Amino acid sequence: MNEKETNAKKPRRKAPAANAGTRQRAVKKKTAAENAAPETPKAPAKRGRPARSKEIKKTPVRIIPLGGLHEIGKNMTVFECSNDMFILDCGLAFPDADMPGVDIVIPDFTYVERNAEKVRGIVITHGHEDHIGGLAYLLKKINVSVYATRLTIGLIEGKLKEQGLYGKVNLNIVEPKKTVKMGCMAVEFIKVNHSIPDSVGMAIHTPAGVIVHTGDFKVDYSPIDGKIIDLARFGELGSRGVLALMADSTNAERPGYTHSERTVGESFDKLFQKGEGKRIIIATFSSNIHRVQQIINCAVRYGRKVAVFGRSMINVINTAIELGYLDVPPGIIIDIEMMNRYESERIVLITTGSQGEPMSALTRMAMNDHKKVNITPMDFIIISATPIPGNEKFVTRVVNELMKSGAEVVYEAMYEVHVSGHACQEELKLMQSLTKPKFFIPVHGEYKHLKKHADLALQMGMPKENVIIAEIGNVIETDGNTMKVVSQVPAGRVLVDGLGVGDVGSIVLRDRKHLAQDGLIIIVIGIDRATNEIVAGPDIISRGFVYVRESEELMVEARLLLTDTLSNCSASELREWNSLKGKMRDALSDYIYQKTKRSPMILPIIMET
Amino acid sequence: MNEKETNAKKPRRKAPAANAGTRQRAVKKKTAAENAAPETPKAPAKRGRPARSKEIKKTPVRIIPLGGLHEIGKNMTVFECSNDMFILDCGLAFPDADMPGVDIVIPDFTYVERNAEKVRGIVITHGHEDHIGGLAYLLKKINVSVYATRLTIGLIEGKLKEQGLYGKVNLNIVEPKKTVKMGCMAVEFIKVNHSIPDSVGMAIHTPAGVIVHTGDFKVDYSPIDGKIIDLARFGELGSRGVLALMADSTNAERPGYTHSERTVGESFDKLFQKGEGKRIIIATFSSNIHRVQQIINCAVRYGRKVAVFGRSMINVINTAIELGYLDVPPGIIIDIEMMNRYESERIVLITTGSQGEPMSALTRMAMNDHKKVNITPMDFIIISATPIPGNEKFVTRVVNELMKSGAEVVYEAMYEVHVSGHACQEELKLMQSLTKPKFFIPVHGEYKHLKKHADLALQMGMPKENVIIAEIGNVIETDGNTMKVVSQVPAGRVLVDGLGVGDVGSIVLRDRKHLAQDGLIIIVIGIDRATNEIVAGPDIISRGFVYVRESEELMVEARLLLTDTLSNCSASELREWNSLKGKMRDALSDYIYQKTKRSPMILPIIMET
Repeated sequence: MNEKETNAKKPRRKAPAANAGTRQRAVKKKTAAENAAPETPKAPAKRGRPARSKEIKKTPVRIIPLGGLHEIGKNMTVFECSNDMFILDCGLAFPDADMPGVDIVIPDFTYVERNAEKVRGIVITHGHEDHIGGLAYLLKKINVSVYATRLTIGLIEGKLKEQGLYGKVNLNIVEPKKTVKMGCMAVEFIKVNHSIPDSVGMAIHTPAGVIVHTGDFKVDYSPIDGKIIDLARFGELGSRGVLALMADSTNAERPGYTHSERTVGESFDKLFQKGEGKRIIIATFSSNIHRVQQIINCAVRYGRKVAVFGRSMINVINTAIELGYLDVPPGIIIDIEMMNRYESERIVLITTGSQGEPMSALTRMAMNDHKKVNITPMDFIIISATPIPGNEKFVTRVVNELMKSGAEVVYEAMYEVHVSGHACQEELKLMQSLTKPKFFIPVHGEYKHLKKHADLALQMGMPKENVIIAEIGNVIETDGNTMKVVSQVPAGRVLVDGLGVGDVGSIVLRDRKHLAQDGLIIIVIGIDRATNEIVAGPDIISRGFVYVRESEELMVEARLLLTDTLSNCSASELREWNSLKGKMRDALSDYIYQKTKRSPMILPIIMET
Repeated sequence: MNEKETNAKKPRRKAPAANAGTRQRAVKKKTAAENAAPETPKAPAKRGRPARSKEIKKTPVRIIPLGGLHEIGKNMTVFECSNDMFILDCGLAFPDADMPGVDIVIPDFTYVERNAEKVRGIVITHGHEDHIGGLAYLLKKINVSVYATRLTIGLIEGKLKEQGLYGKVNLNIVEPKKTVKMGCMAVEFIKVNHSIPDSVGMAIHTPAGVIVHTGDFKVDYSPIDGKIIDLARFGELGSRGVLALMADSTNAERPGYTHSERTVGESFDKLFQKGEGKRIIIATFSSNIHRVQQIINCAVRYGRKVAVFGRSMINVINTAIELGYLDVPPGIIIDIEMMNRYESERIVLITTGSQGEPMSALTRMAMNDHKKVNITPMDFIIISATPIPGNEKFVTRVVNELMKSGAEVVYEAMYEVHVSGHACQEELKLMQSLTKPKFFIPVHGEYKHLKKHADLALQMGMPKENVIIAEIGNVIETDGNTMKVVSQVPAGRVLVDGLGVGDVGSIVLRDRKHLAQDGLIIIVIGIDRATNEIVAGPDIISRGFVYVRESEELMVEARLLLTDTLSNCSASELREWNSLKGKMRDALSDYIYQKTKRSPMILPIIMET
């Protein structure tokens, strides 16, 4: 109770005006965000306006996760206060095995669309697909300003170009330590470490208190770019009072701490020695620019040239070089066409395909299907990644094929060729200790991750009632004293298949899965509407059911059965097409199941002639 | 060269007559196998018949793997010498994601069927599905005698009952250390440790020399049944000269050694204390009878009753009790119906579902879909297994759902709740050291496993040319001096779907995958054969493509397009049905792709009226 009262009495800082230190890109248009003073700890008094804040304080703040809870991916959260709303991240998720044919999954934007006039902007924590991959789809629905760090904006620009939105959206670069105003709220960018440069967490200054959202983070005391997570600022916020912490749960199951990205560089160094005399091929995530930097550093050190493979790898490296995130000495990166001018042992290939993705460059190399690269025993291949759950079999297949070509393949933990980008338990506890939040909402993870993360907070002494494991669509409301789920807004998944957004739903998926399991049998008959006589058929066509040439008897018998069924129908039964279809379906279905123990989809079609 | 000569000069032992110490079960009929003297090391002289062996020695021995190489599962090997042939194991594999609707995968039996009259019998190393799951299908093709240890025979009997073969096959129990004659070869059973009791490796005594096949194995110095792998016999064979070793490669990537099954019991003990006051639910592989024994031991120790869930778990436990492989004090196992008579904290449930299999008991409990068990915060659940590659997402889903019901779930390596049944690198090296084979053929594994295992042998000094990484269908021939792949026989995978064995081939699978990806559009038109006029349609029906109610415009336009296409056809074009179908398919396919970037299967049907 004491703590609550203390919190409640604390004067709330007014949200500072936004956008000092930000740079507008693309089409400049007037937005809700204005210039802001840097959020520095030195002048808190100036920003305090007790009189007004007392009034606003009663306005509840609502946190509405629209993705990223009980799932991996499509991270998206709405923050709402009074008539103002902003969105934090807008990612995609990759489809599960039970979504055949689906390309990507994005959040359901219904709630945001309904409140479009309230949305003051979108802030993005970093440039990974699960944080920016849904953005283009959202911006087609509501065109609002986007705020992110420099590299993140660069990567978003690439996405928008692909979707024909380039130049149509107001993109704003925000440096860490700077703040963006979102109506009565303000969002402060705080440097964190992650597996992509320029990642930030956010401190959301609201009338009800400060909400810290870590984004994806880890603590790296020796990051490649020298920029350590701004632990001091998290601590400072904690000292002043953090209302709620929302933190990355991805690695909440893992004890200890995540190793520094630099350890991978040390492994690369050893492996470049081991691979001496051979061509070295390294597959990794295209967005892991620090990893790429370390490969380039090794290439320089061991006198090798670098060739880059895979569309996304080329795109990201170009963006990173252009924006100054990669330090590449002149002449180190060579065009693929120039490879033949160098001896194999003087070359490193950097490529996509670390997840064994079927169309990726590494997979094509493994399958002897790459135009430029032929794998031989003179190749030394490093897969610098761990398989994302669900991809294990793809990666294994690629490893097997590469090894069959005689190449040496390093893919295990025997050399530390990959480190996670997410905080393990000790780092999560550090974040709790620094921010000392009153309430805790674990985010970014399946239930088991959220639960473990919640358990960590409880172990550190947080009262059970102050920890909320939420679900997407939950409206979590807080007035600075209490925090609870008060209602529900529409939330879910929208499937993107080709150009179609949302036109593949549960019925289409059910049919696809049914067709995949047992295939399809089509029955066609023609009925003369005038006489109600069957004038054609029954014909039977099947696909994905049996190899028809070897099952002729089955199909002939099936046709005879249907002929019988139809000849037993009275004239009135032949007029009731729906029940007639049902009759044919039932008769054939029973027969097929009895003969084969399979249940193909049966589709009776009646043609009216 | 010296070694080769030494080997060649060594007098070959005659294969002893088979089946002393074996017990025939089921229908007894005369088989090639006769009574045999126990293969004991004391009387080697008696079995030596140098004169005959010299003559036979020149007959080459052929090893033909028909499954289990470059893959996990469907282990099967043919050994052939002169006019005699026998089969070692006949397992199944589980389908990959690219085999939708397929239930199981079995080896291609063509070669064995063609040589049916030569087959002297089938020996089985242990009762796991990947070693016995194809047996019933093989026995339907060729009815020969089966030889295995007691528990393995018990489990095979269960399989044969399911397939209507019970009583029709000659099943023979063979104790470890005993030998079965297979024409001019003899197979000696050697006790090994594995995750199912009564596992054996085999020493195959042939005119060309002794071939040791480990089966699946690990070295457990403290096994639950007290029966340690017969290392002495492997060593003895090695001292006398082993021509070739074929050894389990499953864990060849893992350094160190596999922990004893007993360590799991120690973890269970701790977890029973931790779960005090709660109902304990443990999921594990039904075949891991030693694991089940340890659960029962803990139940006894902590005063709990045991209830068993899942069809395969019930079957295996019944068989194990009947054959004396489980030591269950009276009254410990209770009927599911009796559970309510006991307080929850006095009960342990043992269940299937450790792989998250959708229809398993644990999955149904997790999804609130089990008639008898409702998961609550008063449940303490242990998943005593690690996910088999490909099953990770299933297991995760089950863990998430169980945790959502408030149960505590132990599923990680934090407690040692599972150990592998396969030998790691140190054990593999021990096997090499004991048997000192001249040639080495790594078996049971994907290429990466076989390669690592081969590398281990090379590191231990084996000449490169003496290590053979084979493929299924390879005919590996040896005369005792050399060993090489000399030819190829038919080999591959046969897909079982329902009652159909082999009727799902590449065309059916291709169609299923196509249907799953983008669904199906059917075009139907009726043509009057007499006048060559279109008298019905075009009608369009789709499944798994788009949600039609929300895509009416697309479907209406598609129909108009087809009407146009058809009206532009001349009378002669309307007579050429194949090209007419092609025209409709092309027109619709282009239109649909342009509008949706999808490529559904398009199926034009012309009805003749």
